[in-house]
Amino acid sequence: MTRYRLIIAYDGTAYAGWQIQPDGRTIQGELENAIHRISGQEKVRVQCSGRTDTGVHARAQAAHVDLDHPMPVRKLLEGCNALLDEDIRVLKASRVSPEFHARFSAASKEYRYFIWNGNVVPPHVRNQRTWVRRPLDVQAMKKAAAILQGEHDFAAFTANPNREVEGTVRNLSVLKISKKGHEVIITARAGGFLYKMVRSLAGFLIRVGNGDLPPEAAGEILRSKKRTAAVPTAAPQGLFLWRVFYGQGGES
Amino acid sequence: MTRYRLIIAYDGTAYAGWQIQPDGRTIQGELENAIHRISGQEKVRVQCSGRTDTGVHARAQAAHVDLDHPMPVRKLLEGCNALLDEDIRVLKASRVSPEFHARFSAASKEYRYFIWNGNVVPPHVRNQRTWVRRPLDVQAMKKAAAILQGEHDFAAFTANPNREVEGTVRNLSVLKISKKGHEVIITARAGGFLYKMVRSLAGFLIRVGNGDLPPEAAGEILRSKKRTAAVPTAAPQGLFLWRVFYGQGGES
Repeated sequence: MTRYRLIIAYDGTAYAGWQIQPDGRTIQGELENAIHRISGQEKVRVQCSGRTDTGVHARAQAAHVDLDHPMPVRKLLEGCNALLDEDIRVLKASRVSPEFHARFSAASKEYRYFIWNGNVVPPHVRNQRTWVRRPLDVQAMKKAAAILQGEHDFAAFTANPNREVEGTVRNLSVLKISKKGHEVIITARAGGFLYKMVRSLAGFLIRVGNGDLPPEAAGEILRSKKRTAAVPTAAPQGLFLWRVFYGQGGES
Repeated sequence: MTRYRLIIAYDGTAYAGWQIQPDGRTIQGELENAIHRISGQEKVRVQCSGRTDTGVHARAQAAHVDLDHPMPVRKLLEGCNALLDEDIRVLKASRVSPEFHARFSAASKEYRYFIWNGNVVPPHVRNQRTWVRRPLDVQAMKKAAAILQGEHDFAAFTANPNREVEGTVRNLSVLKISKKGHEVIITARAGGFLYKMVRSLAGFLIRVGNGDLPPEAAGEILRSKKRTAAVPTAAPQGLFLWRVFYGQGGES
């Protein structure tokens, strides 16, 4: 058995997310099928650093796969890219030690959420931006982000706190707002995220930027530990899994 | 009758080009249908600065349309964007004098041709880049572009010289090659272009960049005034109508 690490980019628009489904095309399903065809191996399992939902994108998802018979990494990469549709690309493939695990070896992950804050969304980025028409108060968003950054119980910022077997405390080492022309970008980095946590943070921060809530609401909502209507889940198409950090300076 | 100028961006991937067709969706067809629905006007004709082919994009196409009954520009813009699919957007609408003509008043147009020169095309730009895998010799392309820039008979760089009623001499005021990371960009500006001229120039320049032809071949091909296999037509998806210049500093 030989383990390979894959770095994968995808446009999630046409997919029912990462995880294989009985019906509906998924990133994992497409990759496993491609590797099955290249390797001839019956059972192929591709394990990623963290699943992405329907319509969510990846700039550099990391994954690993085990092959019964070793294969040149170039053949694995080019074989996948020849068989996959152009909206999924394997950017890199490398042999790794069997101790490497795409999910459990990851030190942290970075997501970026892209908002188009203007009258008209340019057609070429329509599936990778969330449209917010009213000018956002970026200073207010920065204040709210500063409150949310750090280690907190984020139970109020997940779709379903009860499904989190490891509890709901997470350490958001980075939560940053930046503005570039008509784009407002939320960058979030943590060792682990709760289910739909980034989109919940984005939904709340957009409400603050719209003036619906003051930045200080961030503290009250954290303390409440209850998901309420104050925290909507922002649309999936603005979200990218940006990169995955591994120990010893490795990065996807 | 009131004349309006529209600035339009589109992702040409799903369209059979600008010009209305008996079958097949076109940019012009979609726009005319939307304006017909907003205005109730029976016959709507949208005239652009220059037609684009199947799969070709526009960052800022310019067009004009005449309405029997005047309408606030905001209503025109927002009505179009509410009815059109998200791959066509009206970026600006303004009232103009009846002397303005999107095609005949244009002083010059700029096209940009985008090449992805690397092993893997990122999924999110797959429909807006032409893939050239082998590293291009950008210096050679620049030399060839310098020969082609200026006023010449471009009969060898059009799909069909006989259809050009105004002859085949054109003045390429700009033909520039630039490189940014894995992208090689060809910028072409002229008062007028022949049919498929930019894609023919791109096809030739890619051959020079690949080392199939020396830069000096540009002069010989110009002088031959004959379209040959030395000048392939590059794929449409790399091409953008970038902007249209009008007199008195106006720009789309």
